Amino acid sequence: MKGNACERLGIDSKQIHLPEETTTEQLLDQIEKLNEDETVHGILLQHPVPNHIDERLAFDTIAIEKDVDGVTSEGFGQTAFNFGKFPSCTPAAILEMIDFYHIPVEGKRAVVIGRSPILGKPVSMMLLNRNATVTMCHSKTENLPEVIQQADIVIAAVGKPSFVQGNWVKQGAVILDAGYNKGNIGDVDYDSCVEKAGAITPVPGGVGPVTISMLLKHTVLSAEWKTAKGNI
Amino acid sequence: MKGNACERLGIDSKQIHLPEETTTEQLLDQIEKLNEDETVHGILLQHPVPNHIDERLAFDTIAIEKDVDGVTSEGFGQTAFNFGKFPSCTPAAILEMIDFYHIPVEGKRAVVIGRSPILGKPVSMMLLNRNATVTMCHSKTENLPEVIQQADIVIAAVGKPSFVQGNWVKQGAVILDAGYNKGNIGDVDYDSCVEKAGAITPVPGGVGPVTISMLLKHTVLSAEWKTAKGNI
Repeated sequence: MKGNACERLGIDSKQIHLPEETTTEQLLDQIEKLNEDETVHGILLQHPVPNHIDERLAFDTIAIEKDVDGVTSEGFGQTAFNFGKFPSCTPAAILEMIDFYHIPVEGKRAVVIGRSPILGKPVSMMLLNRNATVTMCHSKTENLPEVIQQADIVIAAVGKPSFVQGNWVKQGAVILDAGYNKGNIGDVDYDSCVEKAGAITPVPGGVGPVTISMLLKHTVLSAEWKTAKGNI
Repeated sequence: MKGNACERLGIDSKQIHLPEETTTEQLLDQIEKLNEDETVHGILLQHPVPNHIDERLAFDTIAIEKDVDGVTSEGFGQTAFNFGKFPSCTPAAILEMIDFYHIPVEGKRAVVIGRSPILGKPVSMMLLNRNATVTMCHSKTENLPEVIQQADIVIAAVGKPSFVQGNWVKQGAVILDAGYNKGNIGDVDYDSCVEKAGAITPVPGGVGPVTISMLLKHTVLSAEWKTAKGNI
Protein backbone atom coordinates (compact mmCIF):
# COMPACT_ATOMS: atom_id res chain seq x y z
CA MET A 1 0.00 0.00 0.00
CA LYS A 2 2.82 2.41 0.81
CA GLY A 3 4.59 1.60 -2.47
CA ASN A 4 1.39 2.22 -4.45
CA ALA A 5 0.78 5.49 -2.64
CA CYS A 6 4.33 6.62 -3.49
CA GLU A 7 3.75 5.82 -7.14
CA ARG A 8 0.51 7.83 -7.24
CA LEU A 9 2.40 10.86 -5.90
CA GLY A 10 5.51 10.51 -8.04
CA ILE A 11 7.77 9.47 -5.17
CA ASP A 12 10.34 6.86 -6.20
CA SER A 13 10.21 4.04 -3.69
CA LYS A 14 12.66 1.21 -3.43
CA GLN A 15 11.94 -1.94 -1.42
CA ILE A 16 14.94 -3.70 0.01
CA HIS A 17 14.12 -7.23 1.11
CA LEU A 18 16.69 -8.79 3.39
CA PRO A 19 16.69 -12.51 4.16
CA GLU A 20 15.26 -13.70 7.49
CA GLU A 21 18.73 -14.67 8.73
CA THR A 22 20.14 -11.14 8.31
CA THR A 23 22.08 -10.10 11.42
CA THR A 24 21.68 -6.80 13.27
CA GLU A 25 25.10 -5.72 11.95
CA GLN A 26 24.09 -6.42 8.36
CA LEU A 27 20.87 -4.49 8.82
CA LEU A 28 22.75 -1.55 10.35
CA ASP A 29 25.17 -1.58 7.40
CA GLN A 30 22.24 -1.40 5.01
CA ILE A 31 20.67 1.48 6.94
CA GLU A 32 23.96 3.37 7.00
CA LYS A 33 24.28 2.98 3.24
CA LEU A 34 20.83 4.56 2.86
CA ASN A 35 21.78 7.31 5.33
CA GLU A 36 24.69 8.22 3.06
CA ASP A 37 22.79 7.86 -0.22
CA GLU A 38 22.01 11.42 -1.33
CA THR A 39 19.14 10.26 -3.53
CA VAL A 40 17.24 8.86 -0.52
CA HIS A 41 15.09 11.29 1.50
CA GLY A 42 13.21 8.91 3.74
CA ILE A 43 13.93 5.52 5.30
CA LEU A 44 11.19 3.22 6.58
CA LEU A 45 12.16 0.07 8.44
CA GLN A 46 9.20 -2.26 8.13
CA HIS A 47 8.55 -3.75 11.55
CA PRO A 48 8.28 -5.85 13.62
CA VAL A 49 11.65 -7.30 12.62
CA PRO A 50 12.68 -10.89 13.49
CA ASN A 51 13.42 -11.49 17.18
CA HIS A 52 17.18 -11.89 16.79
CA ILE A 53 17.47 -8.30 15.46
CA ASP A 54 18.01 -5.37 17.84
CA GLU A 55 15.06 -3.36 16.54
CA ARG A 56 15.67 -0.32 18.74
CA LEU A 57 19.30 -0.09 17.60
CA ALA A 58 18.18 -0.43 13.99
CA PHE A 59 15.62 2.35 14.41
CA ASP A 60 18.16 4.61 16.11
CA THR A 61 20.66 4.07 13.31
CA ILE A 62 18.34 5.85 10.86
CA ALA A 63 19.65 9.39 10.24
CA ILE A 64 17.25 11.80 11.92
CA GLU A 65 16.78 13.90 8.78
CA LYS A 66 15.58 10.75 6.95
CA ASP A 67 13.48 9.40 9.82
CA VAL A 68 10.19 10.16 8.03
CA ASP A 69 8.43 7.37 9.94
CA GLY A 70 9.34 8.96 13.29
CA VAL A 71 10.91 5.96 14.99
CA THR A 72 14.19 7.26 16.44
CA SER A 73 14.61 8.02 20.16
CA GLU A 74 15.99 11.42 19.26
CA GLY A 75 13.03 12.20 17.00
CA PHE A 76 10.68 11.18 19.79
CA GLY A 77 12.51 13.52 22.17
CA GLN A 78 12.22 16.37 19.69
CA THR A 79 8.51 15.67 19.21
CA ALA A 80 8.00 15.58 22.99
CA PHE A 81 9.82 18.90 23.27
CA ASN A 82 7.61 20.31 20.50
CA PHE A 83 10.18 20.94 17.80
CA GLY A 84 10.31 17.57 16.05
CA LYS A 85 10.12 17.62 12.26
CA PHE A 86 8.78 14.12 11.72
CA PRO A 87 6.61 12.78 14.53
CA SER A 88 5.60 9.12 14.29
CA CYS A 89 3.09 8.78 11.49
CA THR A 90 0.09 7.38 13.40
CA PRO A 91 0.23 10.11 16.08
CA ALA A 92 0.68 12.67 13.31
CA ALA A 93 -2.41 11.26 11.57
CA ILE A 94 -4.43 11.48 14.79
CA LEU A 95 -3.51 15.14 15.25
CA GLU A 96 -4.17 15.82 11.56
CA MET A 97 -7.71 14.42 11.90
CA ILE A 98 -8.32 16.33 15.13
CA ASP A 99 -7.30 19.53 13.35
CA PHE A 100 -9.23 18.79 10.18
CA TYR A 101 -12.45 18.37 12.13
CA HIS A 102 -11.66 21.32 14.45
CA ILE A 103 -11.85 19.15 17.56
CA PRO A 104 -10.94 21.32 20.57
CA VAL A 105 -7.96 19.96 22.53
CA GLU A 106 -6.82 22.68 24.92
CA GLY A 107 -7.92 22.02 28.49
CA LYS A 108 -9.68 18.80 27.46
CA ARG A 109 -9.12 15.47 29.17
CA ALA A 110 -7.43 13.01 26.81
CA VAL A 111 -6.96 9.37 27.68
CA VAL A 112 -4.44 7.36 25.68
CA ILE A 113 -4.70 3.57 25.96
CA GLY A 114 -1.37 2.01 25.04
CA ARG A 115 2.21 3.22 25.50
CA SER A 116 4.25 2.05 22.54
CA PRO A 117 7.23 4.11 21.38
CA ILE A 118 5.63 4.98 18.05
CA LEU A 119 2.05 5.43 19.14
CA GLY A 120 0.91 5.81 22.75
CA LYS A 121 3.95 7.71 23.99
CA PRO A 122 4.29 10.22 21.14
CA VAL A 123 0.54 10.89 20.78
CA SER A 124 0.42 11.56 24.55
CA MET A 125 3.21 14.10 24.20
CA MET A 126 1.63 15.74 21.16
CA LEU A 127 -1.72 16.13 22.92
CA LEU A 128 0.09 17.47 25.99
CA ASN A 129 1.85 20.04 23.80
CA ARG A 130 -1.59 21.09 22.55
CA ASN A 131 -2.56 21.75 26.17
CA ALA A 132 -4.72 18.69 26.79
CA THR A 133 -4.61 17.08 30.23
CA VAL A 134 -3.35 13.64 29.23
CA THR A 135 -3.70 10.33 31.07
CA MET A 136 -1.57 7.43 29.84
CA CYS A 137 -3.15 4.00 30.39
CA HIS A 138 -1.97 0.47 29.71
CA SER A 139 -2.32 -3.16 30.71
CA LYS A 140 -1.52 -2.42 34.38
CA THR A 141 -4.06 0.38 34.68
CA GLU A 142 -6.68 -0.35 37.33
CA ASN A 143 -10.35 0.47 36.70
CA LEU A 144 -9.69 1.40 33.09
CA PRO A 145 -13.37 1.98 32.24
CA GLU A 146 -13.58 4.59 35.04
CA VAL A 147 -10.52 6.37 33.71
CA ILE A 148 -11.88 6.38 30.17
CA GLN A 149 -15.23 7.68 31.46
CA GLN A 150 -13.52 11.00 32.22
CA ALA A 151 -12.09 11.47 28.74
CA ASP A 152 -13.20 14.09 26.25
CA ILE A 153 -10.80 12.48 23.77
CA VAL A 154 -10.04 8.74 23.73
CA ILE A 155 -7.06 7.41 21.77
CA ALA A 156 -7.19 3.63 21.45
CA ALA A 157 -3.74 2.26 20.68
CA VAL A 158 -3.64 -0.93 22.66
CA GLY A 159 -3.72 -3.74 20.08
CA LYS A 160 -6.76 -5.57 21.47
CA PRO A 161 -9.63 -6.15 19.02
CA SER A 162 -12.90 -4.32 19.83
CA PHE A 163 -11.58 -3.59 23.32
CA VAL A 164 -13.11 -0.20 24.16
CA GLN A 165 -16.80 -0.58 24.99
CA GLY A 166 -19.56 1.95 24.53
CA ASN A 167 -20.51 1.89 28.22
CA TRP A 168 -16.94 2.96 29.11
CA VAL A 169 -17.06 6.26 27.22
CA LYS A 170 -18.62 9.58 28.12
CA GLN A 171 -21.50 10.91 26.03
CA GLY A 172 -20.03 13.11 23.30
CA ALA A 173 -16.46 11.85 23.61
CA VAL A 174 -14.21 11.96 20.54
CA ILE A 175 -12.86 8.48 19.87
CA LEU A 176 -9.86 7.87 17.61
CA ASP A 177 -9.14 4.22 16.92
CA ALA A 178 -5.50 3.57 16.04
CA GLY A 179 -5.81 -0.19 16.44
CA TYR A 180 -4.88 -2.62 13.70
CA ASN A 181 -5.75 -6.15 14.67
CA LYS A 182 -6.05 -9.34 12.64
CA GLY A 183 -9.04 -9.29 10.35
CA ASN A 184 -8.87 -5.49 10.00
CA ILE A 185 -10.51 -4.93 13.38
CA GLY A 186 -9.84 -1.84 15.45
CA ASP A 187 -9.32 -1.44 19.22
CA VAL A 188 -12.75 0.13 19.59
CA ASP A 189 -16.09 -1.69 19.61
CA TYR A 190 -17.50 0.65 17.00
CA ASP A 191 -21.14 -0.43 17.19
CA SER A 192 -21.48 0.19 20.92
CA CYS A 193 -19.37 3.37 20.85
CA VAL A 194 -20.84 5.12 17.81
CA GLU A 195 -24.07 6.01 19.59
CA LYS A 196 -22.32 7.83 22.41
CA ALA A 197 -19.39 9.37 20.55
CA GLY A 198 -19.37 12.98 19.46
CA ALA A 199 -17.02 11.83 16.71
CA ILE A 200 -15.45 8.45 15.98
CA THR A 201 -13.08 6.93 13.41
CA PRO A 202 -13.85 3.57 11.81
CA VAL A 203 -11.54 0.62 11.12
CA PRO A 204 -10.83 -0.05 8.28
CA GLY A 205 -10.52 3.51 7.07
CA GLY A 206 -10.05 6.22 9.66
CA VAL A 207 -6.58 6.65 11.12
CA GLY A 208 -4.87 4.02 8.90
CA PRO A 209 -5.03 5.72 5.50
CA VAL A 210 -4.16 9.11 7.00
CA THR A 211 -1.09 7.49 8.57
CA ILE A 212 0.20 6.57 5.11
CA SER A 213 -0.45 10.15 3.97
CA MET A 214 1.67 11.43 6.85
CA LEU A 215 4.54 9.16 5.81
CA LEU A 216 4.36 10.54 2.28
CA LYS A 217 4.07 14.12 3.52
CA HIS A 218 7.16 13.71 5.70
CA THR A 219 9.08 12.22 2.78
CA VAL A 220 8.17 15.12 0.51
CA LEU A 221 9.10 17.63 3.23
CA SER A 222 12.42 15.86 3.75
CA ALA A 223 13.20 16.13 0.03
CA GLU A 224 12.10 19.77 -0.12
CA TRP A 225 14.17 20.77 2.91
CA LYS A 226 17.21 19.02 1.49
CA THR A 227 16.77 20.85 -1.83
CA ALA A 228 16.29 24.18 -0.03
CA LYS A 229 19.48 23.57 1.96
CA GLY A 230 21.38 22.64 -1.20
CA ASN A 231 20.34 25.94 -2.76
CA ILE A 232 21.61 28.17 0.06
CA MET B 1 26.73 23.29 46.20
CA LYS B 2 27.44 21.00 43.26
CA GLY B 3 31.13 21.97 43.31
CA ASN B 4 31.37 21.25 47.04
CA ALA B 5 29.63 17.91 46.62
CA CYS B 6 32.11 16.96 43.88
CA GLU B 7 34.99 17.84 46.16
CA ARG B 8 33.63 15.67 49.01
CA LEU B 9 33.49 12.72 46.62
CA GLY B 10 36.84 13.26 44.94
CA ILE B 11 35.37 14.32 41.60
CA ASP B 12 37.37 17.06 39.92
CA SER B 13 34.99 19.83 38.91
CA LYS B 14 35.81 22.78 36.71
CA GLN B 15 33.56 25.80 36.48
CA ILE B 16 33.69 27.67 33.21
CA HIS B 17 32.16 31.13 33.51
CA LEU B 18 31.33 32.74 30.19
CA PRO B 19 30.49 36.44 29.93
CA GLU B 20 26.83 37.49 29.63
CA GLU B 21 27.34 38.58 26.00
CA THR B 22 28.54 35.13 24.87
CA THR B 23 26.80 34.10 21.62
CA THR B 24 25.14 30.75 21.01
CA GLU B 25 27.98 29.86 18.60
CA GLN B 26 30.62 30.60 21.23
CA LEU B 27 28.75 28.50 23.79
CA LEU B 28 28.43 25.61 21.31
CA ASP B 29 32.19 25.83 20.61
CA GLN B 30 32.87 25.59 24.33
CA ILE B 31 30.56 22.58 24.70
CA GLU B 32 32.17 20.86 21.74
CA LYS B 33 35.61 21.33 23.27
CA LEU B 34 34.35 19.62 26.43
CA ASN B 35 32.78 16.85 24.34
CA GLU B 36 36.20 16.13 22.85
CA ASP B 37 38.13 16.48 26.10
CA GLU B 38 38.90 12.92 27.23
CA THR B 39 39.41 14.01 30.83
CA VAL B 40 35.80 15.25 31.08
CA HIS B 41 33.11 12.68 31.94
CA GLY B 42 30.13 14.91 32.56
CA ILE B 43 28.96 18.29 31.28
CA LEU B 44 26.43 20.42 33.14
CA LEU B 45 25.12 23.57 31.48
CA GLN B 46 23.87 25.77 34.29
CA HIS B 47 20.48 27.14 33.25
CA PRO B 48 18.45 29.16 32.56
CA VAL B 49 20.88 30.79 30.13
CA PRO B 50 20.44 34.40 28.91
CA ASN B 51 17.54 34.96 26.51
CA HIS B 52 19.67 35.53 23.40
CA ILE B 53 21.13 32.00 23.69
CA ASP B 54 19.44 29.03 21.99
CA GLU B 55 19.25 26.92 25.15
CA ARG B 56 17.76 23.86 23.46
CA LEU B 57 20.49 23.81 20.81
CA ALA B 58 23.11 24.19 23.53
CA PHE B 59 21.64 21.28 25.51
CA ASP B 60 21.46 19.10 22.40
CA THR B 61 25.10 19.83 21.57
CA ILE B 62 26.21 18.00 24.73
CA ALA B 63 27.53 14.54 23.79
CA ILE B 64 25.03 11.99 25.02
CA GLU B 65 27.65 9.94 26.88
CA LYS B 66 28.53 13.09 28.90
CA ASP B 67 24.94 14.27 29.41
CA VAL B 68 24.97 13.41 33.11
CA ASP B 69 22.34 16.09 33.83
CA GLY B 70 19.90 14.43 31.39
CA VAL B 71 19.03 17.46 29.26
CA THR B 72 19.38 16.27 25.66
CA SER B 73 16.36 15.44 23.49
CA GLU B 74 17.96 12.12 22.62
CA GLY B 75 18.57 11.29 26.28
CA PHE B 76 14.94 12.11 27.04
CA GLY B 77 13.83 9.80 24.22
CA GLN B 78 15.99 7.00 25.59
CA THR B 79 14.60 7.54 29.09
CA ALA B 80 11.05 7.53 27.73
CA PHE B 81 11.82 4.27 25.91
CA ASN B 82 13.26 2.84 29.13
CA PHE B 83 16.89 2.40 28.15
CA GLY B 84 18.31 5.83 28.97
CA LYS B 85 21.56 5.86 30.96
CA PHE B 86 21.24 9.32 32.49
CA PRO B 87 17.67 10.47 33.08
CA SER B 88 17.24 14.10 34.16
CA CYS B 89 18.47 14.38 37.72
CA THR B 90 15.32 15.61 39.47
CA PRO B 91 13.14 12.81 38.00
CA ALA B 92 15.90 10.35 38.86
CA ALA B 93 15.88 11.67 42.45
CA ILE B 94 12.11 11.29 42.67
CA LEU B 95 12.30 7.65 41.54
CA GLU B 96 15.25 7.04 43.88
CA MET B 97 13.21 8.27 46.86
CA ILE B 98 10.16 6.26 45.80
CA ASP B 99 12.34 3.15 45.67
CA PHE B 100 14.18 3.89 48.91
CA TYR B 101 10.89 4.12 50.81
CA HIS B 102 9.38 1.15 48.92
CA ILE B 103 6.45 3.22 47.66
CA PRO B 104 4.36 1.02 45.35
CA VAL B 105 4.01 2.46 41.84
CA GLU B 106 2.57 -0.29 39.62
CA GLY B 107 -1.11 0.25 38.89
CA LYS B 108 -1.19 3.42 41.01
CA ARG B 109 -2.59 6.72 39.77
CA ALA B 110 0.19 9.30 39.48
CA VAL B 111 -0.51 12.95 38.75
CA VAL B 112 2.37 15.11 37.56
CA ILE B 113 1.83 18.88 37.76
CA GLY B 114 4.17 20.60 35.30
CA ARG B 115 5.52 19.55 31.92
CA SER B 116 9.06 20.88 31.59
CA PRO B 117 11.60 18.97 29.47
CA ILE B 118 13.77 18.12 32.46
CA LEU B 119 11.12 17.47 35.07
CA GLY B 120 7.43 16.98 34.30
CA LYS B 121 7.88 15.17 31.01
CA PRO B 122 10.67 12.76 32.03
CA VAL B 123 9.21 11.93 35.45
CA SER B 124 5.88 11.15 33.73
CA MET B 125 7.64 8.75 31.38
CA MET B 126 9.61 7.13 34.19
CA LEU B 127 6.48 6.54 36.27
CA LEU B 128 4.72 5.21 33.17
CA ASN B 129 7.59 2.77 32.62
CA ARG B 130 7.08 1.62 36.21
CA ASN B 131 3.47 0.81 35.30
CA ALA B 132 1.77 3.76 36.97
CA THR B 133 -1.27 5.28 35.28
CA VAL B 134 0.05 8.79 34.74
CA THR B 135 -1.87 12.04 34.24
CA MET B 136 0.11 15.07 33.05
CA CYS B 137 -1.30 18.41 34.26
CA HIS B 138 -0.28 22.01 33.65
CA SER B 139 -1.48 25.61 33.56
CA LYS B 140 -4.29 24.80 31.08
CA THR B 141 -5.65 21.87 33.09
CA GLU B 142 -9.24 22.42 34.14
CA ASN B 143 -10.42 21.47 37.64
CA LEU B 144 -6.89 20.64 38.76
CA PRO B 145 -7.89 19.93 42.38
CA GLU B 146 -10.34 17.27 41.14
CA VAL B 147 -7.63 15.64 39.06
CA ILE B 148 -5.16 15.66 41.96
CA GLN B 149 -7.85 14.20 44.22
CA GLN B 150 -7.55 10.94 42.28
CA ALA B 151 -3.81 10.61 42.70
CA ASP B 152 -2.05 8.01 44.80
CA ILE B 153 1.22 9.77 43.93
CA VAL B 154 1.46 13.53 43.37
CA ILE B 155 4.55 15.06 41.75
CA ALA B 156 4.61 18.84 42.11
CA ALA B 157 6.87 20.37 39.49
CA VAL B 158 5.03 23.51 38.53
CA GLY B 159 7.13 26.37 39.90
CA LYS B 160 4.40 28.04 41.96
CA PRO B 161 5.15 28.54 45.67
CA SER B 162 2.95 26.56 48.10
CA PHE B 163 0.55 25.81 45.24
CA VAL B 164 -0.78 22.33 46.08
CA GLN B 165 -3.27 22.52 48.94
CA GLY B 166 -4.10 19.90 51.51
CA ASN B 167 -7.78 19.81 50.57
CA TRP B 168 -6.82 18.87 46.98
CA VAL B 169 -5.07 15.63 47.92
CA LYS B 170 -6.45 12.23 48.76
CA GLN B 171 -5.96 10.82 52.25
CA GLY B 172 -2.77 8.77 52.22
CA ALA B 173 -1.38 10.16 48.97
CA VAL B 174 2.39 10.22 48.49
CA ILE B 175 3.49 13.79 47.71
CA LEU B 176 6.87 14.59 46.17
CA ASP B 177 7.66 18.28 45.98
CA ALA B 178 10.15 19.10 43.22
CA GLY B 179 9.47 22.83 43.39
CA TYR B 180 12.24 25.37 43.95
CA ASN B 181 10.80 28.84 44.35
CA LYS B 182 12.30 32.06 45.69
CA GLY B 183 12.89 31.94 49.41
CA ASN B 184 13.43 28.17 49.33
CA ILE B 185 9.72 27.43 49.12
CA GLY B 186 8.34 24.33 47.43
CA ASP B 187 5.32 23.86 45.17
CA VAL B 188 3.40 22.13 47.96
CA ASP B 189 1.72 23.80 50.92
CA TYR B 190 3.44 21.47 53.37
CA ASP B 191 1.48 22.39 56.47
CA SER B 192 -1.93 21.66 54.97
CA CYS B 193 -0.71 18.57 53.06
CA VAL B 194 1.32 16.84 55.76
CA GLU B 195 -1.76 15.78 57.74
CA LYS B 196 -3.32 13.96 54.79
CA ALA B 197 -0.21 12.60 53.08
CA GLY B 198 0.90 9.01 53.49
CA ALA B 199 4.41 10.33 52.79
CA ILE B 200 5.66 13.78 51.84
CA THR B 201 8.98 15.46 51.03
CA PRO B 202 9.87 18.84 52.57
CA VAL B 203 11.44 21.91 50.95
CA PRO B 204 14.24 22.68 51.72
CA GLY B 205 15.61 19.16 51.93
CA GLY B 206 13.69 16.42 50.20
CA VAL B 207 14.09 16.10 46.44
CA GLY B 208 16.73 18.85 46.06
CA PRO B 209 19.72 17.23 47.80
CA VAL B 210 18.97 13.85 46.22
CA THR B 211 18.99 15.56 42.81
CA ILE B 212 22.60 16.62 43.38
CA SER B 213 23.45 13.05 44.41
CA MET B 214 21.98 11.80 41.12
CA LEU B 215 24.18 14.21 39.16
CA LEU B 216 27.24 12.91 40.98
CA LYS B 217 26.17 9.28 40.54
CA HIS B 218 25.72 9.79 36.81
CA THR B 219 29.14 11.44 36.55
CA VAL B 220 30.83 8.56 38.36
CA LEU B 221 28.99 6.03 36.17
CA SER B 222 30.06 7.92 33.06
CA ALA B 223 33.69 7.78 34.16
CA GLU B 224 33.46 4.10 35.10
CA TRP B 225 31.84 3.12 31.80
CA LYS B 226 34.46 5.05 29.87
CA THR B 227 37.23 3.28 31.79
CA ALA B 228 35.58 -0.11 31.27
CA LYS B 229 35.32 0.59 27.54
CA GLY B 230 38.97 1.67 27.42
CA ASN B 231 39.98 -1.66 28.98
CA ILE B 232 38.21 -3.86 26.45
